[in-house]
Amino acid sequence: MKIAIVFGGISFEHEISIVSSIAMKDVLKDELIYIFIDKDRDLYEIPSSKINSKLFSSAEYLKFDKVFLKKGGFYKVSGLFKKEQNIDFDVVLNLSHGGDGEDGVLSSVLDFYNIPFIAPRTEACVVSSNKFITKGYAQSVDVKTLPYKYYTKNDSIKVDMFPVILKPVKLGSSIGVSIVKNQEELAYALDVAFEFDDAIIIEPFISGVKEYNLAGTKVNGEFIFSIIEEPQKAEFLDFDKKYLDFSRTSKALEVDLGEKLNSEIKESFKKIYNTLFEGSIIRCDFFVVEDKVYLNEINSIPGSMANYLFEDFQDLFTKVASNLPKKKFIPINYEYVNKIQVAKGK
Amino acid sequence: MKIAIVFGGISFEHEISIVSSIAMKDVLKDELIYIFIDKDRDLYEIPSSKINSKLFSSAEYLKFDKVFLKKGGFYKVSGLFKKEQNIDFDVVLNLSHGGDGEDGVLSSVLDFYNIPFIAPRTEACVVSSNKFITKGYAQSVDVKTLPYKYYTKNDSIKVDMFPVILKPVKLGSSIGVSIVKNQEELAYALDVAFEFDDAIIIEPFISGVKEYNLAGTKVNGEFIFSIIEEPQKAEFLDFDKKYLDFSRTSKALEVDLGEKLNSEIKESFKKIYNTLFEGSIIRCDFFVVEDKVYLNEINSIPGSMANYLFEDFQDLFTKVASNLPKKKFIPINYEYVNKIQVAKGK
Repeated sequence: MKIAIVFGGISFEHEISIVSSIAMKDVLKDELIYIFIDKDRDLYEIPSSKINSKLFSSAEYLKFDKVFLKKGGFYKVSGLFKKEQNIDFDVVLNLSHGGDGEDGVLSSVLDFYNIPFIAPRTEACVVSSNKFITKGYAQSVDVKTLPYKYYTKNDSIKVDMFPVILKPVKLGSSIGVSIVKNQEELAYALDVAFEFDDAIIIEPFISGVKEYNLAGTKVNGEFIFSIIEEPQKAEFLDFDKKYLDFSRTSKALEVDLGEKLNSEIKESFKKIYNTLFEGSIIRCDFFVVEDKVYLNEINSIPGSMANYLFEDFQDLFTKVASNLPKKKFIPINYEYVNKIQVAKGK
Repeated sequence: MKIAIVFGGISFEHEISIVSSIAMKDVLKDELIYIFIDKDRDLYEIPSSKINSKLFSSAEYLKFDKVFLKKGGFYKVSGLFKKEQNIDFDVVLNLSHGGDGEDGVLSSVLDFYNIPFIAPRTEACVVSSNKFITKGYAQSVDVKTLPYKYYTKNDSIKVDMFPVILKPVKLGSSIGVSIVKNQEELAYALDVAFEFDDAIIIEPFISGVKEYNLAGTKVNGEFIFSIIEEPQKAEFLDFDKKYLDFSRTSKALEVDLGEKLNSEIKESFKKIYNTLFEGSIIRCDFFVVEDKVYLNEINSIPGSMANYLFEDFQDLFTKVASNLPKKKFIPINYEYVNKIQVAKGK
């Protein structure tokens, strides 16, 4: 298959998306083309043979063909006669992490132009990219989350118990996240979080909490799971460390939590994925506290697609790409308008 | 101001959107232009002086200028020299009801192309257009909803207590909704609902339940409310009756529920609207059962913008149009990529 990796975008994770996308060259055997969304939301086609991270920091990408969206795909105007040309590919892989890619904007745009893509559809993007909406959704599908408080910029914020972890609702990759150990540290942490977002959640911070990651997808109604990994981490991963994580291609080590917890984590994943996430490969990060499973967060477009967690990522990827959810056909007729016209005698 | 009304779209409420949009000619004093999204998602510019419902049922709209999206706005190629021309307007009013308009697709597309618009942003669209996600969100912001069960297409569905009301999760305007009085009626109602959607919710049906509608918006941090209306309705509105509702321009009658309930309804609206719905004028439909307020649904793009509920809709509309939420600036730099390059000695 020929895969168009769409990456970049207006996002705090713009650079991460570049690293993650380049890593896919080592992961997928498919023919790849790259569509880069730059900071002005201009689109460029970058040949797979030419891509490297310096291309972007040096702005050299500007010399490649500019691309625009039209029904059914990406187009460019090129050649001696400036002819409009359809860029050939089978399926888009959306690897734009964070804003644009994960908040539903890009999924909507691809949907609007009728372009097949691997990524959560708009609804699933919103549910996973906004931690506050994630919490409400998890509760609805009967998956536990840690208790939390939600605040917007102008709320008066009171914290009684420390330590807490403070997160902007919409950022990924630990951006703007702080662990706050006492009242003195709170004001600064709030400033940091609100610099990135207009709303935050505050959760109890459980030092040394066990975290487990599980990736998966659903193809033709059947779930396919990765191994469960216990990510190696410092107290929590800062941006630089997470960054390296996004270019991971070497296999992870499986952890065995015993039948009960293994299956509870998988059941929780299934409840979250449900029908909402069809068409995507996601990673769910869980906490285990006193033998109970809690959803920490949903990574709707995980770094380098969490390839390192799967035994045969290529096989899985091909299955997903070949079985994307079909949109329900919505008939547009003018039954009612015609009725009005008849009634008016027109 | 010059307002571009965007309407139509791939939606079961395509026709409703036409009726609703034409009604705005009698509501707004602004200069209007119309951008129609047809069943193939092709866009056309319809002059305000030419618009009428027959234009669409007869496919006459096809003779008007085709429009395409580019950064900052809508463009057409016209005139003798086929020159590309920017269509002039200040703000888009999204009046595409149902799919495309209310599910976040159109908001994302307008956002992607940096076009200012009146409508909920993508997240708010998803929260309000999917009744299941609405329920989770309402609970999160501490607003009561009726109890419900959520089912997807392949679930085994059991109902013990009748009557119930059965709703596709994503449709508006009562499409696919049935009141089910006994076990015998269930199978047919399920067939109907699943014809329109892959997921449904089932709620207890409370005959003669009191329903109250309140519309409103937030401008510069201050809420502006409409009157509270008790909509006149049959057991529940069928499609034709709702349809007429979408072209309403005559003022509604205010109902006074007493200080306590009036204020509880307004407080519930505030909790729902929060910061999520900034940039939009929405209508919330509430039930009152035993003096308690329950959210029934959020109309994120109400029919004819619920103009008939406001004392001075024009004034409100102008305020919203002039105070749209600004997007946070997200700096894109290549700090990390540069660091990698330095480390590599490149």
